[in-house]
Amino acid sequence: MRKLYGIGTGPGASDLLTVRAVNVLESADMIFAPNNKGKNMALDTCKPYIKTKRIVMIDFPMGNVTEKHYIDAMELIHEEIGENQIGAFLNIGDSTIYSTFMNMVLTNLKEDMEVELVPGIPSFVGAANAVKRNLTLKGENFLLCDEPSEEILNSVESVAILKTFKEKQETLEMLENNGFNYVYVSNASQENQKVLYEKEEILSEENYISLILARREELTKELD
Amino acid sequence: MRKLYGIGTGPGASDLLTVRAVNVLESADMIFAPNNKGKNMALDTCKPYIKTKRIVMIDFPMGNVTEKHYIDAMELIHEEIGENQIGAFLNIGDSTIYSTFMNMVLTNLKEDMEVELVPGIPSFVGAANAVKRNLTLKGENFLLCDEPSEEILNSVESVAILKTFKEKQETLEMLENNGFNYVYVSNASQENQKVLYEKEEILSEENYISLILARREELTKELD
Repeated sequence: MRKLYGIGTGPGASDLLTVRAVNVLESADMIFAPNNKGKNMALDTCKPYIKTKRIVMIDFPMGNVTEKHYIDAMELIHEEIGENQIGAFLNIGDSTIYSTFMNMVLTNLKEDMEVELVPGIPSFVGAANAVKRNLTLKGENFLLCDEPSEEILNSVESVAILKTFKEKQETLEMLENNGFNYVYVSNASQENQKVLYEKEEILSEENYISLILARREELTKELD
Repeated sequence: MRKLYGIGTGPGASDLLTVRAVNVLESADMIFAPNNKGKNMALDTCKPYIKTKRIVMIDFPMGNVTEKHYIDAMELIHEEIGENQIGAFLNIGDSTIYSTFMNMVLTNLKEDMEVELVPGIPSFVGAANAVKRNLTLKGENFLLCDEPSEEILNSVESVAILKTFKEKQETLEMLENNGFNYVYVSNASQENQKVLYEKEEILSEENYISLILARREELTKELD
């Protein structure tokens, strides 16, 4: 039997991995990480725990991942993990939230490979803790999305919008018009974390690893 | 100066705390934990890391917490933490999600006390990883709530419903009628974790630490 772990590596700080994730990384025979145009935040996050490990980069195009990519990726992973070996695949944040890990595994299931997931701190949870804001309270609806619509904003009290580099102006205006205030966070939990409240400043940012937390004005309290 | 940390202790397994949470617990002078009718899951979760620490239980009634409780709790915490000492307050899951920690701190702010949050794995994230289901994918809306309505279900692809002990039958029927399938998870990540798919079995359960994950039928893939 072969074993493949999907590891949620959290928002980016190395000490925001779980103890279980660290233990799995230290016991793994090899580490898989998606290769997005040479960037790999998950690998940077895990660096302190995988110094002596063999790293296998998996090529995934940004945005346009097809079934063929998943099939090829699983073939490669299956070839690399030997009998009775353990591989760990790194996913930014958590493997069940805007991640392709599960689709990759399900597209090309291997009978002699057991898959297990280790949860990670999602980016929006890391950001809410960093800016000391409640994400959601008793009786409230919290929405997580990457493309908000006016209709759904009417039904929720709080929202996290990921990957905000697209249509940022439209998104901010939609939030304002529906009585939400907002905070923009990029690189949450990392040394270069940025927290912005002013619309013009937010619009001038271009960062893929960014998100917006918004709450209805009357419900927003923040500690700092 | 005094320092108070709000620590997210995750879904219940001791190795699902973050490395940062463990480090803070080990450096803390005392540990605060809410005392809900003698139950304290967060304290059980952290047991391996706080064996020699002074534990201060804070009385909070289940359900009916008033401003007076918050004020009294902060008075007690402020008295306990001495000058230049560090206290850590334990919150199940994460401190920004259905937690009273931030409200408590904001209700009775202390000028000589710095507050910092350490994120934890939310219960619904722990559960999704345990049952190997995607919570949300590109282009989807994910809803987190404790009281779902038919209206909002129409606008989302995926939902996590917490504290499902109330009106479970109504909730399950609403999900079925709107094209969602569901899985019930109690005590996610713990030794006594229970995963149920059958309606009758779910209805016969009475557990406070439980939740339902639901996705539109056509979008649901699960590994096992």
